Amino acid sequence: MTNFAQTKEQFHLPKDIIYLDGNSLGPLPLAACSRVQDTMQNEWGELLIRGWNEASWFSQPISVGDRLARLIGAETGSVVVGDTLSIKIFQALGAALAMKPDRHVILSDRGNFPTDLYMAEGLIQSLDRGLQLHTPAPEAVEASIDESVAVLMLTEVDYRTGRRHDMKKLTAKAHAHGVITIWDLAHSAGALPLALSEAKADFACGCTYKYINGGPGAPAFMYVAPRHADNAEPILAGWQGHAEPFDFDLNYTAHAGAARMRVGTPPVLQMASLEAALDIWEQVDMHDVREQSIVLSERFIKSVERQCNQLKLASPRDPMQRGSQVSFHFEHGYQAIQALISRGVIGDFRAPDIMRFGLTPLYITEADVDAAADHIATVINERLWDNPEFMRKGTVT
Amino acid sequence: MTNFAQTKEQFHLPKDIIYLDGNSLGPLPLAACSRVQDTMQNEWGELLIRGWNEASWFSQPISVGDRLARLIGAETGSVVVGDTLSIKIFQALGAALAMKPDRHVILSDRGNFPTDLYMAEGLIQSLDRGLQLHTPAPEAVEASIDESVAVLMLTEVDYRTGRRHDMKKLTAKAHAHGVITIWDLAHSAGALPLALSEAKADFACGCTYKYINGGPGAPAFMYVAPRHADNAEPILAGWQGHAEPFDFDLNYTAHAGAARMRVGTPPVLQMASLEAALDIWEQVDMHDVREQSIVLSERFIKSVERQCNQLKLASPRDPMQRGSQVSFHFEHGYQAIQALISRGVIGDFRAPDIMRFGLTPLYITEADVDAAADHIATVINERLWDNPEFMRKGTVT
Repeated sequence: MTNFAQTKEQFHLPKDIIYLDGNSLGPLPLAACSRVQDTMQNEWGELLIRGWNEASWFSQPISVGDRLARLIGAETGSVVVGDTLSIKIFQALGAALAMKPDRHVILSDRGNFPTDLYMAEGLIQSLDRGLQLHTPAPEAVEASIDESVAVLMLTEVDYRTGRRHDMKKLTAKAHAHGVITIWDLAHSAGALPLALSEAKADFACGCTYKYINGGPGAPAFMYVAPRHADNAEPILAGWQGHAEPFDFDLNYTAHAGAARMRVGTPPVLQMASLEAALDIWEQVDMHDVREQSIVLSERFIKSVERQCNQLKLASPRDPMQRGSQVSFHFEHGYQAIQALISRGVIGDFRAPDIMRFGLTPLYITEADVDAAADHIATVINERLWDNPEFMRKGTVT
Repeated sequence: MTNFAQTKEQFHLPKDIIYLDGNSLGPLPLAACSRVQDTMQNEWGELLIRGWNEASWFSQPISVGDRLARLIGAETGSVVVGDTLSIKIFQALGAALAMKPDRHVILSDRGNFPTDLYMAEGLIQSLDRGLQLHTPAPEAVEASIDESVAVLMLTEVDYRTGRRHDMKKLTAKAHAHGVITIWDLAHSAGALPLALSEAKADFACGCTYKYINGGPGAPAFMYVAPRHADNAEPILAGWQGHAEPFDFDLNYTAHAGAARMRVGTPPVLQMASLEAALDIWEQVDMHDVREQSIVLSERFIKSVERQCNQLKLASPRDPMQRGSQVSFHFEHGYQAIQALISRGVIGDFRAPDIMRFGLTPLYITEADVDAAADHIATVINERLWDNPEFMRKGTVT
């Protein structure tokens, strides 16, 4: 049984803050500071260039990938860490499209995170082979899977509403129609038990700065099913994905397995921070995380809805259909979120009207959830959001 | 006049080590440790998600780019920081090729760093528009520039020999034939005075973990000439290069200027370390660096050649034709480098037979160079390399 009191103690949580935005950027694991210092002083400082071998920097994209593999139900050796999620989506799309040269549709949905769609549009334009991107409503995706589709690219958990696709079912239907699947796990990894191998996913990508708590700008990861890994074309053919990177051949030969999806030099300081975050995940059973996430989110919804009827639940009511976040529609959501932040409750806003709250059992308790719901009720019922100080100015992050 | 005794004091240099590999990974700036700690504890730890605005993480790819711009003779706003050099090369190539839809040759040279060629090959295969990569010998590049060439993609300073292309002259010839130029500055930035704007370079990319001393895995940078920046197609259309990233539009609209070449979330911890390295560069005149680099390299060559005639200079003898490294051919180079490392002199080996030494005035003195040359002479003349302990085993880094 996971001891969440113990996991909470391993994070730095600022005084008088209830942090419900770990679905955007996870908090600082206390051990990350000393881990990064050790990497800087004892590895970079003392070993210098020898750190690539002697401190195993060069193999980290694979060894850290193996640590993530356990969290997402993936096979050892099937996950590589590096770059950003956008880049990994591009690589997965490039490889998947190359496997279906005679098909012309990339099927996604209009709830997908925009960068996934932008990367697809950019690739479609470059490849110039008559590809089209289809983005039906999320509920219409299943019915849109047919033999015209080359690739089904979905984000499992919607970044705005928390609505969750059924990975296993959609993957099975995709495969029945000869479609390759790409799952974006940005809001899944560290939030839900995942079973990529069991679901027979083809490719998956995710990031490590949200629920995983790897730190701002922590690298992305990419999963390649072992059955594809030796044939997948790494459209970004970087030297670190070469079969023999230090031979400096003028010709490219892809490395065996998922390691071919490495591109350039990995971010060693970010890796150190991520490793410290993963140490906490070693103490956690993902099924316990899921169970407690549902306890927290049900409690939160109930309390908010009981206290203020102006917020409309934007997330699915059935917890099995949600990720680990709860979102509400509210016309003045931007201002309400600013008012909440000024009171020490950090959630975030997503256009046009969504107030979004991440419920993360590793460091959020039932008492936090109760207090947050009370603050929300106060802000809404007392119209505390209606203050010029909380008006939108310029860019929203 | 740059005070190199003062710059040297700002680095951690391990005891009893002469570090002649700063052309591969620069040493640790002392201030980088506290800078990264501050970013972790006071920004990530305390501000959490608010760090993107309140600690200016979101604007760092541009603000740090402006600090680099000064070092490479580029216009303010023309440089973005992020990703890896491989990715930036891919973007530059994609944008450059889109500007020349009717031409079919990418001209490079066979001395280029392999990843640049791999990225070009991968892109050629994806675009499938009959493009070809030509890689003549470096000396034959100038004569190969003609109207068939879409893009001239060169690394200014050869990673093995230190041979330097004439950026201004080749760019001028390229432009006279309607060719777009991409300059890889991996071994130039922080090594030589650069004048991208004056040379009328179109695109340039580089890394910050070599001479710049940003740390292992520090991000790359990309220059886009202001005359192209509003039209250049960012083939990797990531959300942070969108005109309004936080509107989360389903359709992509590129940001004005070079900022469109941003892709995903920047590596905030690596940025902090890089900022500390750039503080040292603020105290430096690049012309002084160049002058002292020539003093060091001439002194080094003279001493090595005087003491052992088995090493053959692989770098150009004329210092104006070299970057800030000196390389020698030696049949048993791999073993000789291992023998030197065991004596505390760190250089590196590049296949097939190159012993490579970076001469970096910020922290390397004339006394260091004299001592290193003496060690080399001892290792060669006393055949200390001829020891089973120094034989090549597995991967070389």
